[in-house]
Amino acid sequence: MNTSFKLPGTVEWKNGELYFLDQTLLPLEIISEKQENAEQVWDSIKRLKVRGAPAIGIAGAYGLAVGMRNKLRLSADGFLKELARCAEYLNSSRPTAVNLSWALKRIVGRVSESGLDSAEAMYRLLVTEAELIHAEDRAICEGIGRHGAGLIKEEAGVLTHCNAGSLATSGIGTATAPMYTAHAEGRRFRVFSDETRPLLQGARLTSWELQRAGLDVTLICDNMAASVMAKGWINLVIVGTDRVTANGDVANKIGTLGVAVMAKHFGIPFYVACPSSTVDLATACGADIEIEERDAEEVTSFGERRTAPENIKVCNPAFDVTPNELITGIITEKGIIKAPYGETLVRLFGK
Amino acid sequence: MNTSFKLPGTVEWKNGELYFLDQTLLPLEIISEKQENAEQVWDSIKRLKVRGAPAIGIAGAYGLAVGMRNKLRLSADGFLKELARCAEYLNSSRPTAVNLSWALKRIVGRVSESGLDSAEAMYRLLVTEAELIHAEDRAICEGIGRHGAGLIKEEAGVLTHCNAGSLATSGIGTATAPMYTAHAEGRRFRVFSDETRPLLQGARLTSWELQRAGLDVTLICDNMAASVMAKGWINLVIVGTDRVTANGDVANKIGTLGVAVMAKHFGIPFYVACPSSTVDLATACGADIEIEERDAEEVTSFGERRTAPENIKVCNPAFDVTPNELITGIITEKGIIKAPYGETLVRLFGK
Repeated sequence: MNTSFKLPGTVEWKNGELYFLDQTLLPLEIISEKQENAEQVWDSIKRLKVRGAPAIGIAGAYGLAVGMRNKLRLSADGFLKELARCAEYLNSSRPTAVNLSWALKRIVGRVSESGLDSAEAMYRLLVTEAELIHAEDRAICEGIGRHGAGLIKEEAGVLTHCNAGSLATSGIGTATAPMYTAHAEGRRFRVFSDETRPLLQGARLTSWELQRAGLDVTLICDNMAASVMAKGWINLVIVGTDRVTANGDVANKIGTLGVAVMAKHFGIPFYVACPSSTVDLATACGADIEIEERDAEEVTSFGERRTAPENIKVCNPAFDVTPNELITGIITEKGIIKAPYGETLVRLFGK
Repeated sequence: MNTSFKLPGTVEWKNGELYFLDQTLLPLEIISEKQENAEQVWDSIKRLKVRGAPAIGIAGAYGLAVGMRNKLRLSADGFLKELARCAEYLNSSRPTAVNLSWALKRIVGRVSESGLDSAEAMYRLLVTEAELIHAEDRAICEGIGRHGAGLIKEEAGVLTHCNAGSLATSGIGTATAPMYTAHAEGRRFRVFSDETRPLLQGARLTSWELQRAGLDVTLICDNMAASVMAKGWINLVIVGTDRVTANGDVANKIGTLGVAVMAKHFGIPFYVACPSSTVDLATACGADIEIEERDAEEVTSFGERRTAPENIKVCNPAFDVTPNELITGIITEKGIIKAPYGETLVRLFGK
C-alpha cells in the first residue's frame, strides 16, 4: 500500500541498529530509543516500552541480532550456543507472550538447521530471518486492511477499543488496518476511540497514532460509547483480539464485551480484526480461557494520586470474552470470516 | 430507620453552626468544614464541596440561616430585604441547580408571608423551615429505601453507577437507599460500584460511603460492568437520576444508558431511584432534554497529568438518556412505579 500518512516506527531496524519507540512516554514524549545490547532490549520489552503481540515478536527477533552482532569471532558451534542462550534470555522478558517465543524459536531453528559453518554467515541469516518476520507482519496488517477497508463507507463513524494499532504491530495494525487503508483510499470517516480504562491505551496510544496519521479521531470515555451509538454516530465497530477460540469466541481487552453488547442493541456491525495466527483451534470456547486479574492499584490510583478509598475491594480483569453470537465477522489477512465460526474457522485454519 | 451504620454527615446543623463535609477532598481527607458566613457557603457550593441536588438545597437553606444570624437587630422590614438579597446571592452559586432555588424561594416565601413582626422571630422561622426541608429530604430517602429494599435479596449482587448516595442527600441517598435499608435489615449482599469516568464519583464517593457504612462494596472500571454481569455476579442495577420525563425516559450521569443496555442483554432488572420531585411531567421525553457538554480536559488530563495527545478531539457529555423500555421500575418515596410510565407517572404525580 502506498501510504500517504506517517506510521509511528514502533520497531525499526536501520543500518544494523535497532530502535524502539518508547510507548510508556506517549503521548507526552516521542522518543525513539536505540537498543545498544540484549539487556536493553530485554528491559524495553519488560517495561512495555514496546508492546502488542506482533510488535514484541519482531522486537525479540531483532533483539537477537543486537545480542549476537559482537559474537562474530566465535566458532559456528560457539555462535549457536550463544544464540540459544540469548534467545532464552530475551524470552524471559515476557514469558507469556506467545509471539515472542514463536519468533525466537523460529530464528534459532532456522540458523541451527542451516548447515552454515561460520558465525558471520549465521548472523546474516539471523538478520534476514528477523527482517522476514518483520515483513510478514507488515504484509499481514496490509491484508487485514485490504479485506476490511470496504466495511468503512464515506462519512461513516467507526468505534474502536484499546490499541490494536500500528503501535502493537510493525505495520498498520490489526483493528486500525481497515481504517488506515480506507483513509489511504481517500474516504472520509470519523473514528471514536474508547479511552480504555484502567491503562488508557485508547487515550494514550490509539488517539495519538490515528491523529498523527491525519485521521479524524475523537476520544471518549468508555462509558460514553452507548451515548454516541444512540446518537447514530457509529456505523461500525472494529476491535482487535488476543485469542479467537475454535467456536469464534474472542478474548480481548476488558470492555470489549460491553461494546459488543451495545453494538448489538443499536444494530451496529461488530468486527474483530486479527492475524490468522491468533486463531487458536486448540481452545474450544471462551470459557476455557483463563483471564488475568491485574493489580488493584491500576484502578485505585492514577500516577501517584490515589482516587479511591484505602483497602477498597477491586475487580480488575485484564480481558473479557465476547461470545461468537455478538460478532458480525472476523477480519483476517485471508479474508473476512463469518458465522458459523465452528465450521468456517476450521475450514480456513484447520491443519 | 434505626441505622446501625455511619452516614457521612454531608450537611450538618449543630448548635446553630453549619458544617459541610468537603467532598472535593474525598476519599483522601475527611474534613467537616464549619461555614462561617454566606460567602463561605456560596464558595463551598460553587466549588462542589457540597454536591448532589437534594444536598445543595439543604445547604442553601441553612446557608440563609448562616447569612442572617447576625442581622437580628434589623427591623422586620430590613430583615426581609436582607433575606431576599442573601437568597439571591446564594442562588448565584449554582444557578442551574433546581433544588437550590426551590429551597431558597420556599424559605423566603414562608418568612415573608408569616406576618411575624420581629427579626428574631423571623430568624427562628427561617431555621425551622430549613430544618423541615432537611427532615423531609431524610424522610424521602428513607421512603425510597423502604420501597426498594425488598428488591435486594440475600447474597445478591447490586451494581450502581456514579453517586446517588448519602453524599448527594442529607439522608441515606436515593440509589443507595435500598442498599442501606437492606443492610440495616441484616441482609448480606455485594455492591459493585462503577468508577464513573471522567470525574470518578463512583471511585471517590460511592465506594467510600458504602465501605464506611460497612457494606460489601467492590470498585470496578465502567468497562468491567459487562464482564461482572456475564459472570452472573449482578442480580440488580439501581442508579439515580437527574430528571424523569413524562414518558419515563431518564436522564442520568453519562454511562447509565450503557449499563441499562447491558442489564437488558443479561436479563438483569434495571431500577432508577429518585424523589418524586425529580419527575418532570412538563418534559415529554428524553429527546427534549438538553445534554450539557463539559470541558475536554476532564477526559484528556488527570489532575495535572495529561493522558491524551494535544489538540485531540473529545466528546464529553455529562449525561445520557435511558429510554423507558430499558427501565424495570422507578423507586420513589411513594412506591415503585412500573410501565406504562406515560400512564403510571401521570396517575401518581399529575395534578
